[in-house]
Amino acid sequence: MGELYVVGIGPGAADEMTLRAAETLRHAEVIAGYQGYIDLIRPLFPDKEFISTPMRGETERCRLLLAEALGGKHAAMVCSGDAGVYGMTGLLYELAEGTGLEINVVPGVTAALSGAALLGAPLGHDFAVISLSDLLTPWETIEKRLDHAAAGDLCIALYNPASMKRKDHLSRACEIILRHASPETVCGAARNIARPEESFCLMTLKELQDYQADMFTTVFIGNSQTRVIDGRMVTPRGYTERNK
Amino acid sequence: MGELYVVGIGPGAADEMTLRAAETLRHAEVIAGYQGYIDLIRPLFPDKEFISTPMRGETERCRLLLAEALGGKHAAMVCSGDAGVYGMTGLLYELAEGTGLEINVVPGVTAALSGAALLGAPLGHDFAVISLSDLLTPWETIEKRLDHAAAGDLCIALYNPASMKRKDHLSRACEIILRHASPETVCGAARNIARPEESFCLMTLKELQDYQADMFTTVFIGNSQTRVIDGRMVTPRGYTERNK
Repeated sequence: MGELYVVGIGPGAADEMTLRAAETLRHAEVIAGYQGYIDLIRPLFPDKEFISTPMRGETERCRLLLAEALGGKHAAMVCSGDAGVYGMTGLLYELAEGTGLEINVVPGVTAALSGAALLGAPLGHDFAVISLSDLLTPWETIEKRLDHAAAGDLCIALYNPASMKRKDHLSRACEIILRHASPETVCGAARNIARPEESFCLMTLKELQDYQADMFTTVFIGNSQTRVIDGRMVTPRGYTERNK
Repeated sequence: MGELYVVGIGPGAADEMTLRAAETLRHAEVIAGYQGYIDLIRPLFPDKEFISTPMRGETERCRLLLAEALGGKHAAMVCSGDAGVYGMTGLLYELAEGTGLEINVVPGVTAALSGAALLGAPLGHDFAVISLSDLLTPWETIEKRLDHAAAGDLCIALYNPASMKRKDHLSRACEIILRHASPETVCGAARNIARPEESFCLMTLKELQDYQADMFTTVFIGNSQTRVIDGRMVTPRGYTERNK
């Protein structure tokens, strides 16, 4: 039996992966992933065998790679961001259940962290990460989570704020959060993180409601203490910090 | 004026930092950080000037490094895990406000991600990160956040589950979560992540209530869908995943 690694490669630039992730891929014989990520890493590891499938073909991609690992290969699945956060790790565990194959997970910088770094320090205190995609989750569950995250005054990082099918997810999310948070709450959006066209902007929660996010956007909603400092979004770690 | 970088170096092993973090430190002239992290990276960058202060001397450490950057040096602050999540970035923005110094943030793998990788895929769906330290946050705020995170069926990563002063934080946190979650909820603990003595264990929420965490532990509480697969903690990404 071979070995299976699930590797988070961070946001869209190869130097955002960890040294351990790079070393793991260097030792792999076959690497699988969404076509876009394979294109990103292929120049770094030109001699590998690659398996790529389109965005939605995740289960098929996992099955193909599992077969390689069970057949004796040193196999690696690459995920954008982290390997576990909305990543392939859970699905690989489910599909490999009972086979005896050991799965090794190499964590990576998820968009909540890389987007936050671009914006300043929006996640400097307790936070929630919530996806607005209702492909695999009922929208009612998403609404409940948004409501509780806002009621708990958690900073929030929103993944998948917009999709092709439903354009109003972000606006509806803001409406729910506005039940508990001030319309002046500091918010921000990070786009195309770690790519040449990377950008960010700050706005209020009220403004966020009309913001046109796309599928390359990660959205950040501050807590009641978040403020703008020199054009960045900063959530202090605690109530006495500035007086220490 | 010099430059200031805040660099998340990931959990306790040098190969858990990103290529960009390593490159940033390679270009720095002076590096500041908690003594323990400086000891970790000093062998990799023996020719640098280092500033280290004990655990609680964070504000002083930031001020010393800011002075170096404002004086023209290429300066870097290292943080364990990520630079922003309970890290130094927010404090540096606060202290540098109005000086015109540009702060560059290099994200890193925070313990929620590295601990999750060790346990399997506990954070495969929406999650909250909450610190049980009441040094800078009123305990009532922490309780409110725990209550809402559990009511929203979010997976939870708990930082600082135990401190020298208060031993019962984790037990009290479990009591709050048990208002909403089953005592059989899958939980896990990761200890000394990415160090030679690294370890993890799984347990139920009821068992977690009596678990003796220490300051090197990160605790994970699953959502209602989290299950144990081949000895690992896995939160599926969605309700249809296994039937796709």
